[in-house]
Amino acid sequence: MTIPNLLAERYAGAEMRAIWSPHEKIRREREFWVAVLEAQIELGVEVPSEAPGAYRAVIDDIDTESIARRERRLRHDVMARLEEFCALAGCEYLHWGLTSRDVTENVEQTQIRDAMRLVLTKAVAAADAVARRAADLAAMPVVARTHNVPAQVTTFGRRFATAGEELIRTVRRLEALLEDYPLRGLKGAVGTQVDLLALFGGDSSKVEALEAALAERLGFTGGLSAVGQVYPRSLDFEVVSCLFGIATGPANLATTIRLMAGQELVTEGFGAGQVGSSAMPHKTNARSCERICGLASVLRGHVTIAADLAGTQWNEGDVSCSVVRRITLPDACFAIDGLLETFLTVMQEMQPFPDVAAEELRGRAPLLATSALLVAAADAGADRSKAHAVLQRHSAAAIAAQRAGRSYDLVAALAADEDFPLTEEGVAEVVAEAVKPGRAEAQVAAFVAAAAELVDCYPSAREVAPEPLL
Amino acid sequence: MTIPNLLAERYAGAEMRAIWSPHEKIRREREFWVAVLEAQIELGVEVPSEAPGAYRAVIDDIDTESIARRERRLRHDVMARLEEFCALAGCEYLHWGLTSRDVTENVEQTQIRDAMRLVLTKAVAAADAVARRAADLAAMPVVARTHNVPAQVTTFGRRFATAGEELIRTVRRLEALLEDYPLRGLKGAVGTQVDLLALFGGDSSKVEALEAALAERLGFTGGLSAVGQVYPRSLDFEVVSCLFGIATGPANLATTIRLMAGQELVTEGFGAGQVGSSAMPHKTNARSCERICGLASVLRGHVTIAADLAGTQWNEGDVSCSVVRRITLPDACFAIDGLLETFLTVMQEMQPFPDVAAEELRGRAPLLATSALLVAAADAGADRSKAHAVLQRHSAAAIAAQRAGRSYDLVAALAADEDFPLTEEGVAEVVAEAVKPGRAEAQVAAFVAAAAELVDCYPSAREVAPEPLL
Amino acid sequence: MTIPNLLAERYAGAEMRAIWSPHEKIRREREFWVAVLEAQIELGVEVPSEAPGAYRAVIDDIDTESIARRERRLRHDVMARLEEFCALAGCEYLHWGLTSRDVTENVEQTQIRDAMRLVLTKAVAAADAVARRAADLAAMPVVARTHNVPAQVTTFGRRFATAGEELIRTVRRLEALLEDYPLRGLKGAVGTQVDLLALFGGDSSKVEALEAALAERLGFTGGLSAVGQVYPRSLDFEVVSCLFGIATGPANLATTIRLMAGQELVTEGFGAGQVGSSAMPHKTNARSCERICGLASVLRGHVTIAADLAGTQWNEGDVSCSVVRRITLPDACFAIDGLLETFLTVMQEMQPFPDVAAEELRGRAPLLATSALLVAAADAGADRSKAHAVLQRHSAAAIAAQRAGRSYDLVAALAADEDFPLTEEGVAEVVAEAVKPGRAEAQVAAFVAAAAELVDCYPSAREVAPEPLL
Amino acid sequence: MTIPNLLAERYAGAEMRAIWSPHEKIRREREFWVAVLEAQIELGVEVPSEAPGAYRAVIDDIDTESIARRERRLRHDVMARLEEFCALAGCEYLHWGLTSRDVTENVEQTQIRDAMRLVLTKAVAAADAVARRAADLAAMPVVARTHNVPAQVTTFGRRFATAGEELIRTVRRLEALLEDYPLRGLKGAVGTQVDLLALFGGDSSKVEALEAALAERLGFTGGLSAVGQVYPRSLDFEVVSCLFGIATGPANLATTIRLMAGQELVTEGFGAGQVGSSAMPHKTNARSCERICGLASVLRGHVTIAADLAGTQWNEGDVSCSVVRRITLPDACFAIDGLLETFLTVMQEMQPFPDVAAEELRGRAPLLATSALLVAAADAGADRSKAHAVLQRHSAAAIAAQRAGRSYDLVAALAADEDFPLTEEGVAEVVAEAVKPGRAEAQVAAFVAAAAELVDCYPSAREVAPEPLL
Repeated sequence: MTIPNLLAERYAGAEMRAIWSPHEKIRREREFWVAVLEAQIELGVEVPSEAPGAYRAVIDDIDTESIARRERRLRHDVMARLEEFCALAGCEYLHWGLTSRDVTENVEQTQIRDAMRLVLTKAVAAADAVARRAADLAAMPVVARTHNVPAQVTTFGRRFATAGEELIRTVRRLEALLEDYPLRGLKGAVGTQVDLLALFGGDSSKVEALEAALAERLGFTGGLSAVGQVYPRSLDFEVVSCLFGIATGPANLATTIRLMAGQELVTEGFGAGQVGSSAMPHKTNARSCERICGLASVLRGHVTIAADLAGTQWNEGDVSCSVVRRITLPDACFAIDGLLETFLTVMQEMQPFPDVAAEELRGRAPLLATSALLVAAADAGADRSKAHAVLQRHSAAAIAAQRAGRSYDLVAALAADEDFPLTEEGVAEVVAEAVKPGRAEAQVAAFVAAAAELVDCYPSAREVAPEPLL
Repeated sequence: MTIPNLLAERYAGAEMRAIWSPHEKIRREREFWVAVLEAQIELGVEVPSEAPGAYRAVIDDIDTESIARRERRLRHDVMARLEEFCALAGCEYLHWGLTSRDVTENVEQTQIRDAMRLVLTKAVAAADAVARRAADLAAMPVVARTHNVPAQVTTFGRRFATAGEELIRTVRRLEALLEDYPLRGLKGAVGTQVDLLALFGGDSSKVEALEAALAERLGFTGGLSAVGQVYPRSLDFEVVSCLFGIATGPANLATTIRLMAGQELVTEGFGAGQVGSSAMPHKTNARSCERICGLASVLRGHVTIAADLAGTQWNEGDVSCSVVRRITLPDACFAIDGLLETFLTVMQEMQPFPDVAAEELRGRAPLLATSALLVAAADAGADRSKAHAVLQRHSAAAIAAQRAGRSYDLVAALAADEDFPLTEEGVAEVVAEAVKPGRAEAQVAAFVAAAAELVDCYPSAREVAPEPLL
Repeated sequence: MTIPNLLAERYAGAEMRAIWSPHEKIRREREFWVAVLEAQIELGVEVPSEAPGAYRAVIDDIDTESIARRERRLRHDVMARLEEFCALAGCEYLHWGLTSRDVTENVEQTQIRDAMRLVLTKAVAAADAVARRAADLAAMPVVARTHNVPAQVTTFGRRFATAGEELIRTVRRLEALLEDYPLRGLKGAVGTQVDLLALFGGDSSKVEALEAALAERLGFTGGLSAVGQVYPRSLDFEVVSCLFGIATGPANLATTIRLMAGQELVTEGFGAGQVGSSAMPHKTNARSCERICGLASVLRGHVTIAADLAGTQWNEGDVSCSVVRRITLPDACFAIDGLLETFLTVMQEMQPFPDVAAEELRGRAPLLATSALLVAAADAGADRSKAHAVLQRHSAAAIAAQRAGRSYDLVAALAADEDFPLTEEGVAEVVAEAVKPGRAEAQVAAFVAAAAELVDCYPSAREVAPEPLL
Repeated sequence: MTIPNLLAERYAGAEMRAIWSPHEKIRREREFWVAVLEAQIELGVEVPSEAPGAYRAVIDDIDTESIARRERRLRHDVMARLEEFCALAGCEYLHWGLTSRDVTENVEQTQIRDAMRLVLTKAVAAADAVARRAADLAAMPVVARTHNVPAQVTTFGRRFATAGEELIRTVRRLEALLEDYPLRGLKGAVGTQVDLLALFGGDSSKVEALEAALAERLGFTGGLSAVGQVYPRSLDFEVVSCLFGIATGPANLATTIRLMAGQELVTEGFGAGQVGSSAMPHKTNARSCERICGLASVLRGHVTIAADLAGTQWNEGDVSCSVVRRITLPDACFAIDGLLETFLTVMQEMQPFPDVAAEELRGRAPLLATSALLVAAADAGADRSKAHAVLQRHSAAAIAAQRAGRSYDLVAALAADEDFPLTEEGVAEVVAEAVKPGRAEAQVAAFVAAAAELVDCYPSAREVAPEPLL
């Protein structure tokens, strides 16, 4: 029985699975071989004119068992697939002037490129989803925390905007990588294209024309020129780093939702029929947000793996990276795809509890206003250090009371302190003003506008709908 | 179509795949539930006596599609599998006093434990294989290199012994981990066992008896006592670290074989029918050794992933580690299993080329003897710094000649130098003595004895035979 | 101006800094050279009898600037230090039969060993400190959380015991590593000891005797026998992994303290004069716990670095690991030392707020009792699924009310539900029983006993007192 | 005695050390505070007009001991430095409306930005140096290797071009990051700028004007708008990833130089007075290249550390990243700076040995021509599979002979084989043609042109000269 790839089967969406399926790889390799053949024929290589057709006719006739048998004999996976394809077509005109890596590297690059495009679309959809929630919740106040301790006031929407702004920035980097993601091209066994040069009778311009024709067919604009057998693995590292980058905004927000869920400030949602904890039927756990954080950890591992290949290459290339890239490139794509699928669902289903937030806010004021009180006291002529000491003393008393289950009227206490220059009314006024979220709404609006601009560049992101979570 | 787990399908052996197969996990969970039920009945929990039998009767009746349907509805994988099992048996007496993690953590620990045992056996077999090659090649000289530059002389067997000694040491650490690998036990939702205590009417001793009975049935001797819902993830980190440790000796040797293959000193072997490079039929590439190095890189990624879970746990536990452990625990096991399978094959098929080694050695002497010449010169009364300078000057000249394709008689030149105290015969004698591999044979013998001692502890390691490589 | 090592200067303690100071390394190298010289003399190597004394007389006469000048000329740090030492002593009898790595590897191993011993002592002190707090707080209840959401009840002490048990386990692994931490020994340029063999006129037994004498002087019991110029770097990986392991229990507890601080359940302490946040004078931030988590992240990086060296070694050795080990070995030691210093302070200063915990507990019951109510309902004859549904429905209503700022009498509602078999009194009784922390106190007692047993093995741990935090 | 930062002291250059020196940080913070104060005054905040001058007068009066004393009391490093600065100036008008992170984050960003600029300049200089060597060696042939085994022919220059092309690509990414590297700005305690808003009497436009004025003074064009107290740590991850990216081309080339040094194809150079191995005076070790590879490993660790901070942030921010960033940001900069310093030296001093390369090439032909022979045989009408088998058989025989120290005339043997269509002359002609490096020279020229284009953008790169290596 086959051991399934759990990242693919449990978390990733159908489109991402399709890109990396074993059939798809075989199909893309065959497309690649025929594309090269056709370009070679156009450039004058003598091959019977019916050959491309013979290959195209069997391109979808994929028998993985037969290929596996050939591989066990040949101990060479590319040759096994080439032998199978030629046997099906009944002729042998492929792979002339090429080495295995001419096939695998370029084909993988089309998979990587398509996977990055898919991630880009979903990430834009995610930014859009964050923007919609942020806009809705732009003015809904919630206690802001640093060091996980109440600090001042912000809004739910503002919390979302922080992650959304981060997501947009990382999307822009993925976009930049995609724009100049270069094709390795046809370089031969050691990069010098000597066999292609021989195939074209020493005509260097035909080698260049072949590469250009191939790049166009595969949809690439730029290419590498001085690679060895394999392209520099720093390019794979950049891909995996960018994918991890996409994960960071959602993972940060997921972490904060998990923290908020602990205070009943939000729920990530609770799908119909979901059973919750087996033993504790009432619990609405932030399981999806935990999954997002977990998938980010998986991506961190792939960053390490990809870094391990970059800067450690020997001469014109070897295959010590082969097993690594077979694993890490698809798995990193499955992980980020599953993360975005999960995040999109959370963005749909998440619900804030404004009453709980308001209740907390009432309880925390006027402690949260202490920094504003410090400014006000200084404005009213107090010595800053002295005012700071007063505030700290009374704040500490208020907190001590709270911790012992007693009450403490901080406003009154400050007003009564002769080292503090404000009256009770003055203090209350500062508090009322201070527990406002500053420029939060304006900041949310700026983010929402940036998200809208991004989505306008990728209208298909509007159609993205997450698959039901497992 | 299912995306297969490539680490499992291409690299790992059948036994390792069996441990981590989806069916096996379901089967082990069912065994676990019934084991708990039987122990509960023995301790007085009232359940119809035919219940265990009803469950046992359907334990192998596994329908993953049906379970998947339930999970899509419940959004909870353990509850889906419990519901399925109970539906098959027609009764609901399982999981009393337990939480999901009581099931998953303990069951996974049996998988981890069995996987570690399998790795241990294969690693012992690998040490045995290294020892056999080291013994055979104990006296066969080869130029030793530091900084990848010829330094002195060693033997092929001595190179193998270095990796073998490392392997034995890491095996001993895996052995130590297995010896005290503790079972999490039945701890309930937050670790306090409150529901089990309730199930047994507050009888604390029965809770302890239940855990002891379960541990015995599962084959564990020690257990954890103060865990939360989940056990500390540093335990998983230790497992993955130990598995990576096992990889290091083989990966070091594989690296050195790749270096030696570059000088035609060895071939890692060339299976019948193997096609070699598609374009270069003569090449005998160290592909298997490259694979070993690649799988070590994959393991480095899992070390990072496992480290990411340790020291970052919240309260009594959450499931942000769930997706991570689903991936990283089996994949780390598949990676090390595939690495050992590959390494065992290399140890069988690898061949040294003593004639090439001897030829290199002839060419390198007397340059390799310079440190011995320095000692001899000092013994003969020369000033050490001055002798060092003389040696360096003539060595440099010899190397310069070599680099320019000319010859240089270093022995004669030294003897003729008035700042060097030895005669030509004296120099030649020192050279002849110096290009000996010192205590290499004795060191190999010490390693072979240590390996034999290890294998005697694990006689089944002698039966291990690698599966054919893909 | 010198850029200081911040890990050393801001976080680590004085003893750890002393082990890794530049002076100490030079001093230890000199001790090593003289120890080898003395042992060589004992074994018959002819050297003027006053030589060791001449060296010992200048052993503390360390001029780093002079050494740096020599190194700039020689581009070789060990030769620079040897030249300086010999120049000071006025004779050249050191380093015979050795290569640089014979010096550096063995000397570093004494540093590593002493650093591990120091970490072990502090980690035992940390376990002791956790045990004292756990014992004090063994019975003080607090709401337990999974997925960061209230689940059942535990005690403060029980939370500490979880981390303490983890710490003990990782201490035991460090202890095991220290017990069989093997010395590389004197192996010469490629491991074959050929130059030592020459020095002793081919007498193999004298080479063995020299190594044995050196190991005894350095305080090691076992040694490696088949290393190349350098020992296998998997040994360094084990060291760094063990140090990271020590960090995990404290980092888990620090994380949970940060979570608890967010609910005012604890404060990590607030030293006299500490200013708190500049703008928010009342805040008592869990800065030290955040530091602990940060230092654990630094250690994760060193795990990656150490893993990068293991399994990637070439032939008999090179120095691509040199810069890496210069950095990562001391820095990993500084990081864990700083972490333990910080953790010991937190264990001293941390204060729980039982009134806040009690208040939360009152508010959460009877929701926390739902799993017990499920068992009770089943005991009372209800269908488990149906009872589960009833509980989930009313729990959801109670939570919804809470989230909207309304009240909901869950006990009454359940009693009134005809699908639920218990009376109001029955429900209340189950709730009262359920919000007890199960076997928490017994589990804490087991941990405290284990910690006491550990501390008895390392009585000096009782004297450890953290330095004032910066 | 201070423990020095070895990365800074042994490897990094003076400019990089200056950016990250403790004095410089204090100086930049003071500049920042005064810049904010001046901008606030311009926007109408009432402060005595002589205040900025009072601060500027003492800006370079830095007493780290005094600051350290304050920090020990306050347990808050920023407040300690603020207190010191104000005490020196004799007034307290700084830091109004700010929180600590407003200072530290922005100041660190100026350091990061300046460090990236320095790395960019040195990396361009490195690309220039590679281009010069590549141009010189563009036509000098050398056996190309895949799997570390001779494959075809390339040139020395072409090997350099591969790494150079990689370096240019990673430089372009660093350039892109620098171009839109955004300033965090003044956001206050939780990001809402509430205190600045209060300072300006609620005038939102003045807050925006203050941020704009500050950005201009600090030399940034863009900024973040919705950050919390701290900016998203994915930005730091991008920085560290880009720095690691810069390392990959040099590290790949260093690895290949280490491999070539093992065959005497190149030496990395040998500075005057360098002592070489202590025991082996003739050895010219690739120590600098090993150092490059080692520093790349250190950078991999910093990638892991930086990834650990990204996606794990809580709410509006905490300081668990504080210790981490204090270490990893400067250390990553020191590591890449040291790597580039070393690489620049290697590019200056490295020497190829064309005679050795030519000798190897003679020995390897005609085995290296087998793929060309395969094409030629197919062109001459042979069945491809059959010709492949013939070639493989005779190649294997030739290799076997070589391995056994015998000779084998492969050209004659092929010509004599009736299954191979070419005559002896035909074979020899193909061989002569095949052991040419294909399009290597043209590819080198393309790289050299790209490097020139890059250097033209950064003319100061032409002035970069590496400091003497330690």
